[in-house]
Amino acid sequence: MHVGIVGASGAVGEELVSVLARRRFPVTRIDLFASERSAGKTVTTPWGERTVQAYSAAAAGACDVVFLAVSGSFAEAEAPTLARTALVIDNSSAFRYHADVPLVVPEINADTIGDAMLIANPNCTTAVLVVALDPIQRAFGLERVIVSSYQATSGAGQAGMEELIRETGRVLAGETAANDVFQHPIAFNLIPHIDVFQPNGYTKEEMKVAWESRKILRQDDLKISCTAVRVPTLRVHSEAVTIETKRPVTPDEVRALLASAPGVVVVDDPAARQYPMPKTATGRDDVEVGRIRRNDVFGDHGIDLFLCGDQLLKGAALNAVQIAEAALAQGRLPGTQRAA
Amino acid sequence: MHVGIVGASGAVGEELVSVLARRRFPVTRIDLFASERSAGKTVTTPWGERTVQAYSAAAAGACDVVFLAVSGSFAEAEAPTLARTALVIDNSSAFRYHADVPLVVPEINADTIGDAMLIANPNCTTAVLVVALDPIQRAFGLERVIVSSYQATSGAGQAGMEELIRETGRVLAGETAANDVFQHPIAFNLIPHIDVFQPNGYTKEEMKVAWESRKILRQDDLKISCTAVRVPTLRVHSEAVTIETKRPVTPDEVRALLASAPGVVVVDDPAARQYPMPKTATGRDDVEVGRIRRNDVFGDHGIDLFLCGDQLLKGAALNAVQIAEAALAQGRLPGTQRAA
Repeated sequence: MHVGIVGASGAVGEELVSVLARRRFPVTRIDLFASERSAGKTVTTPWGERTVQAYSAAAAGACDVVFLAVSGSFAEAEAPTLARTALVIDNSSAFRYHADVPLVVPEINADTIGDAMLIANPNCTTAVLVVALDPIQRAFGLERVIVSSYQATSGAGQAGMEELIRETGRVLAGETAANDVFQHPIAFNLIPHIDVFQPNGYTKEEMKVAWESRKILRQDDLKISCTAVRVPTLRVHSEAVTIETKRPVTPDEVRALLASAPGVVVVDDPAARQYPMPKTATGRDDVEVGRIRRNDVFGDHGIDLFLCGDQLLKGAALNAVQIAEAALAQGRLPGTQRAA
Repeated sequence: MHVGIVGASGAVGEELVSVLARRRFPVTRIDLFASERSAGKTVTTPWGERTVQAYSAAAAGACDVVFLAVSGSFAEAEAPTLARTALVIDNSSAFRYHADVPLVVPEINADTIGDAMLIANPNCTTAVLVVALDPIQRAFGLERVIVSSYQATSGAGQAGMEELIRETGRVLAGETAANDVFQHPIAFNLIPHIDVFQPNGYTKEEMKVAWESRKILRQDDLKISCTAVRVPTLRVHSEAVTIETKRPVTPDEVRALLASAPGVVVVDDPAARQYPMPKTATGRDDVEVGRIRRNDVFGDHGIDLFLCGDQLLKGAALNAVQIAEAALAQGRLPGTQRAA
């Protein structure tokens, strides 16, 4: 299979190469694209040394499957053309809310891929949330979901992680922290501002969690809210989640349910100091879920949990590759015949 | 007034000296007490150089007012005796849930001080929360409150802050972070575990927020829950709060209400990137409250907000001194006559 990655020099782009290799995706040729500025760099891949090319629609469109790890505006401009000849999996938010574009987390709604040539990869905070919500929704129904996030600097890409490390070093050296990627200095600070503010007082990041969860879980009337906060960690998004189910539920039932659910791993042994943490969830495919307990605020319909998912994996590259795998399994990849 | 501070060499103890001075509390003499290990150290105070003394019940009991910034077990053993002769303001959790011990946030319930000789200072997460909740409760009633906390390392005292700084430096130097004060390495990590786990799956820290908010707000049936998470910041506790009121409410009403409430300052101008943050709330007496918005999860009874309060100030030393001020204003301080 001829695979293209656009935005190959970013944090998600690099992770895509690694995930494709690790999961033995049937790559016969890989083309790496980036902006003019990053072009020319040589990257060692499991399929040989590749030189990062300046993006061209013709070259990218010649691939069987193209992963877009670029801005929403770039995706908006390029994806429709690319999708005429290649299966396009877009990590940006540009098409996520289009009724005719599937928004896919394969554990949940791989069946919505259909014959789409353009598939949207969800927001990172949403992706790691819904793999935990879906089994609960199926078994007990969801009435209300209240999320507070603790989002890593990787959400702003490589530059975000570098800014955290650089500015933390400056603070430890007695200097004043500055900021470029983030709205304020992030070292030893929290910033309750991710993406742009909406007229309703929520940030777009917070609304993405609501909009995308409803679409992926196929429940338009789901009452769901989020407070999204940037925290000084590197690459795992954490979330404190309060759930009101439609039917009575117990923590033991949720624990048993999630223990056998795909994409999540239950880490919930407080006596042994085992619960989800960025430190343990980093580099892990499965989303860690723990601190599962009854929340009396919603009586016997209330469940609290805490989860940690690698923002660059399930929150981005891993889910994108899983979408390609699902499309492949459904015989949906253009060029499958050619590559086989 | 003859003032004693027990636990004077800790982070809260040091802050108590500074707050007493800054607020011009009528100190005529100050005695600083600590463990044998810390005794002998000389401290410069606005009332002259003082040598930290090894704690003795006789010397501490001779003060008019004694601030305890010590462990719960120490307070449990010593406070009842001290309270025979001195007004004792205890920062530990030892007596907070005793029906006959007032648990006081002066902006809210200074009237409960009465003739008590022992007054409990609340948990830090609770103190910074209730100053924002109280005006909303009075105007609109509280039905449900769901809190997710982002708690600074100062909650574990000076040693907690030192561990964050030391271990962060080690990570930046390419070494592996260790931990001594916290349950896991805190550098670039989050730990959803503060204080000990309870049989219901919540930590004691989380239950303190529920128990103490109900007592301070005098609403035994308040439905309130908390997820408490340690984050790699220094001295400000932040909280994402979702509120269901008893009567319909709008964000503008809450903003106006809090703008004139004591102990809080509204920082809520997203267009100007103004919202509560540890960076701006550090060293500030008032609790910053912002991100005030309608939460549709509870329809026109839903309000979300984000708040940041200095854990060592309103979360500890400031509130303790305010309790002493309130007792003084009520003519309740033993020795007021003597000192005047």
